[in-house]
Amino acid sequence: MPCVVIMAGGRGERFWPRSRMAMPKQFLNLIGDKTMLQLTVERVKGLVDLTDIYIVAGREFREIIINQIPDLPESNFVIEPFGRDTAAAIGLAALVVRQKNPLDVEIVLPADNYVNDEQRFQEILRAAVIIAGKGEQIITLGITPHRPETGYGYICQGDLFDTVAGTPVYQVDRFLEKPNYKKALEFLSRGDYLWNSGMFICRVDLIGKLVALHAPLLAEGLNRIEGYFGTGSYPAMLEEVYNGLPKISVDYGIMEREENVLVIRGDFGWDDIGSWTALERYRDQDESGNVIEAKGVFLDTNDSYVYSPDKIVALIGVEDLIVVNDSDCLLVCHKDKTQEIKKAVQILREQGYEEVL
Amino acid sequence: MPCVVIMAGGRGERFWPRSRMAMPKQFLNLIGDKTMLQLTVERVKGLVDLTDIYIVAGREFREIIINQIPDLPESNFVIEPFGRDTAAAIGLAALVVRQKNPLDVEIVLPADNYVNDEQRFQEILRAAVIIAGKGEQIITLGITPHRPETGYGYICQGDLFDTVAGTPVYQVDRFLEKPNYKKALEFLSRGDYLWNSGMFICRVDLIGKLVALHAPLLAEGLNRIEGYFGTGSYPAMLEEVYNGLPKISVDYGIMEREENVLVIRGDFGWDDIGSWTALERYRDQDESGNVIEAKGVFLDTNDSYVYSPDKIVALIGVEDLIVVNDSDCLLVCHKDKTQEIKKAVQILREQGYEEVL
Repeated sequence: MPCVVIMAGGRGERFWPRSRMAMPKQFLNLIGDKTMLQLTVERVKGLVDLTDIYIVAGREFREIIINQIPDLPESNFVIEPFGRDTAAAIGLAALVVRQKNPLDVEIVLPADNYVNDEQRFQEILRAAVIIAGKGEQIITLGITPHRPETGYGYICQGDLFDTVAGTPVYQVDRFLEKPNYKKALEFLSRGDYLWNSGMFICRVDLIGKLVALHAPLLAEGLNRIEGYFGTGSYPAMLEEVYNGLPKISVDYGIMEREENVLVIRGDFGWDDIGSWTALERYRDQDESGNVIEAKGVFLDTNDSYVYSPDKIVALIGVEDLIVVNDSDCLLVCHKDKTQEIKKAVQILREQGYEEVL
Repeated sequence: MPCVVIMAGGRGERFWPRSRMAMPKQFLNLIGDKTMLQLTVERVKGLVDLTDIYIVAGREFREIIINQIPDLPESNFVIEPFGRDTAAAIGLAALVVRQKNPLDVEIVLPADNYVNDEQRFQEILRAAVIIAGKGEQIITLGITPHRPETGYGYICQGDLFDTVAGTPVYQVDRFLEKPNYKKALEFLSRGDYLWNSGMFICRVDLIGKLVALHAPLLAEGLNRIEGYFGTGSYPAMLEEVYNGLPKISVDYGIMEREENVLVIRGDFGWDDIGSWTALERYRDQDESGNVIEAKGVFLDTNDSYVYSPDKIVALIGVEDLIVVNDSDCLLVCHKDKTQEIKKAVQILREQGYEEVL
C-alpha cells in the first residue's frame, strides 16, 4: 500500500486576511464546511489508510492539525522546523516514511488543492502508483490548461511511455518556469503544455537517490538528520541541521534536473484555489453574481465576494470587489488586483503590523 | 441681546454607520476635532452668551449634549419628547425663550452645518438681528448655489428691502421645494434662486404670531403645553400633547405660507455636510485624492474616503469608494451612490438589525 505525504507548510498570503501566519489557507474552510487539509485527506480515503498519511508542516501548526485530523498518528506529523522550501520538506518526509517501509510509494500532494472528480483522481493515482512501484521513475500530474495562467510552472509533455489501466502515461519533455502572459497564451494553444500541479508519485528510495544526485548538499544534511532518528538529540539536531539546508523547490532542485520523469494528465477537475476570485467557482452566487458570506444589505452590488462573519455589512453601488472583514482587519480589493494582496501583506509587515498577518 | 436656538434633533442617516440613532451626525467630529454641535456653538461666540443658547433635541441626547457643551445651563436644553418635525420643535423652543424675554430675537440654526467665514457669518447675523428686532419680519439666510443641488429647498429672492450695515436684505418672492435635476440646473443659472439653509432669524413674539396664523392646530397644542410650564405636570403634559402635534416642517408649515419673509444672501461659505462625499472638501487628501482615517496599506487606491478607527485596512485597486469600518458594521459605498445609504439603513431596520442603526 502506498503512502500519502501532504505538504501543509504553505503561507497562503494571497488569502489574507482570512489566511494568517498562524492559520494559513490550507487550514481554512474556504469552499465548504471542511478545510482544504481535511478535503485533501478525505480525497485519498480508500486509497490509503490514515496511518499511511503524513502531514508536513511547521511545529506551530501541530494543534490545528490534531484538531482537524484527530485520528492522525502523532508520528505521522512531520515537523518542518523552518520553511526551507519543498525539496527539503519532501526529503525530510521521505526519511520518516522509509523508517517504516524503505520501498513504499509516496504520493506527494499539496494540502490546499481542489479536485472535482475524486473517483478519477484515485484512478489516476492508482495507475501512477503501479508505475512508481517499479522504483525507476517519478510521475508528476499535469493539468490541461484552460486559461493563460502565469502563476504556475508548466510541464511539456513528451512521447507516450505506457498505458496503465487505460490511463496514458507520457514522458516529460521538460519543465518550464512561470511564463509571462504572452507565453502563457502560446502554451494554452499548444495542447502538450500542462500545468505543474505540484502533485507527484515516487518510490521513497528513488526520492533519496534523486536528492543525492541533484541536490547533494541537501542529501548530506538529510543523512545527518537521519542518523539521530529515535535518539534524544533528534529535535535539537533536526533544528540545527535543517536550518542549514539549501532552500530550493522540488521542481527547480530535482524535477527540472532529472531526465527520467513521467507525467499523467490529471483530468479530474483540478484547482489550486490560488486567489479569492477562485472561490466563486465553488460557491453559490446570488442572481447578481455575488458570493455573500455575511449579514447585511447589498444594493446595486454585482459580482462581488463578501466575507464578514461577525459584523453587519452594507455594500452599495460596487462591483467586482473582494471584501473580507475579519475580526481585526479589513480587505477591500478589486478582483483584477488580487495578485497585489501578497504585496499588501509585505507592506503591512514592513510597517510593523505583525498582529494582523 | 439675541438668543440662539440650535436644532439638534436630526437623525443623520446619510452618515451611517458613523451616525447612529444613539449618536447622530451633529454630535460627531466629522470635520475636525470638534463635533458639529460644538462648532455651531463656537460660531456664535461673541454674538451671544452661552446662557442665551438653547439646544433642542430628544431626551436621549441629554448626556451627549452635557458632555459636549458642559457649561450649557440645564434649562437651556429644550427636550423634544418625540420628533414632530421642525415647526413643532421651533414652536416649543419659542415657548421656552419667551419665558425669559418675550421680545427676544431668536437665531435658529441647524446643529450640523459648516461655515467657512465665521466673521462674515456673524456680520450677517447682526444685520438680520437688527431687522428682526422690529418684530415685523422673519429673515432667512439663502446660499448662492454653486452646483445643481436637488437635496435642498430653494428661495426665490425678490426686490431689495433694505441695506443694513452694508448688507442688502431682500424680500422673498417665494419658497420652492426640492427640485429635480433639470430644474436644479435652471435654478443654478438664474442667480436669484438661493438654497434654503434652514437658518432664520425672528423675534420670538412674531414666531408665536406666525404659528397661530399658519398652523393653528400646532399653536393650540403649544398653548396647552405653555400652561403647564413650571408645574409638576409639565413633563407628562408635554409628552402627551407634543405627541399629538401636527408633524410639519417650518418651511412648509410657516415660511411658504407667509408673505412677509426676507432673505439675506449668506456669502460666508456654507455647507450642510450632507453626505460622506462632502467631507472631502474639509479634510486633507493624499496625493491620490484619498482621505484616510485609518491605519493600513492603500495600493492603487484613488479618490476614496476610509474611516477605520480600530482595525487595520488594506485597500487595493479601488476608486471613488466610501469605506467606513465601525466597531460593529461596515459600509462600502460608491461615491455616486451615497444617497442610497438612507435606503440601506431602512432595509437594515426592516431586517431587524436595530443594534447597528
